[in-house]
Amino acid sequence: MDVERKNAGGRAEAWGDITPDAARRLVSAAVHAFAERGYHATTTRDIAGRAGMSPAALYIHYKTKEELLYQISKVGHRLALDILEGARDGEGTPAERLATAVRGFVRWHAEHHMTARVVQYELGALGEEHHAEVIAMRRATDAAVRSIIEDGVRTGAFDVPDVRGTTVAVLSLCIDVARWFNARGRSTPDEVGDLYAGLVLRMVGADVAGS
Amino acid sequence: MDVERKNAGGRAEAWGDITPDAARRLVSAAVHAFAERGYHATTTRDIAGRAGMSPAALYIHYKTKEELLYQISKVGHRLALDILEGARDGEGTPAERLATAVRGFVRWHAEHHMTARVVQYELGALGEEHHAEVIAMRRATDAAVRSIIEDGVRTGAFDVPDVRGTTVAVLSLCIDVARWFNARGRSTPDEVGDLYAGLVLRMVGADVAGS
Repeated sequence: MDVERKNAGGRAEAWGDITPDAARRLVSAAVHAFAERGYHATTTRDIAGRAGMSPAALYIHYKTKEELLYQISKVGHRLALDILEGARDGEGTPAERLATAVRGFVRWHAEHHMTARVVQYELGALGEEHHAEVIAMRRATDAAVRSIIEDGVRTGAFDVPDVRGTTVAVLSLCIDVARWFNARGRSTPDEVGDLYAGLVLRMVGADVAGS
Repeated sequence: MDVERKNAGGRAEAWGDITPDAARRLVSAAVHAFAERGYHATTTRDIAGRAGMSPAALYIHYKTKEELLYQISKVGHRLALDILEGARDGEGTPAERLATAVRGFVRWHAEHHMTARVVQYELGALGEEHHAEVIAMRRATDAAVRSIIEDGVRTGAFDVPDVRGTTVAVLSLCIDVARWFNARGRSTPDEVGDLYAGLVLRMVGADVAGS
């Protein structure tokens, strides 16, 4: 899977598709600045400085600070959505596909925790149109996971009294990895992914009903 | 339980113990300002203005912006810790006490989601000593939940291969309610608490092993 290969390369690779190089450097600088001081406390001058560029050079690529946040949010949501839709449409039983979804989603939030925090915590700073676009991607994210859970309920592999609420809980558990994950901590992204895949299968009753 | 009664009154009550009234108003204004624009983008002048006070009047109660953040963080962590230690030390089986802990902790993060976001996302802005004090409270929070899970493993009521990782996951699931909870949304804090208590009992294998 293309997304997997890209993620395996580490955080910087998240922006691999953004060209030219100057734009990519600006996005990376913006992520660091927003994560450190927050969106509202960051100026385009701060971002240009971090990228080793002049404010005028930044302006060639991004007209406003909000455009940078939008770019970060769009790319971040797109990569996360690719992981979940890939799992939904992949081979295997509902339990196998849910485990694949959780492993990939957790790994993304652990490896890219700085980007993920900006994406999650600064959502309210997006302009109206951009906000609406990102909300639509978030609905698709939710729908991908819900669809796997519904498949499992339909085949009898899962026992889930509240599919909507459980979907929210599964996504929330994975997303919050970005808040607490520490690259110098005891667990690797893959170890957290494996643990969480097991916990989520228990949440949907896959252990009880057999899958 | 005293904390429960206090929380049942809604968000403003979280600061009920802070006196005099002016200090309480300043803390409440700071929470709103930090939640809206972030800690670093907020000035003490902004906070005083929101509280209907002059910067000089603010200075009587809090010498710096960081002192306000520390006050918010300390009170927030203390209330959350009281809920979890109350559940740990309460009556009942490990499953009952874990369910009580999750219900209370979720309800706190739903009802006080604005405070909880500030507490969680601005942790890095605390001064060194204050940061160390808050980290100690977070370790106690973790220890309270871990202790209930260990009790359940000991009695055979729970089946938990990774107690440390599962404790992190349980707390994380509850804390992230503060990010997504919407007071105008479909679920009340109590409904989310009930759903999550059930999901967490599944995570610790209480359904399988019998409790």
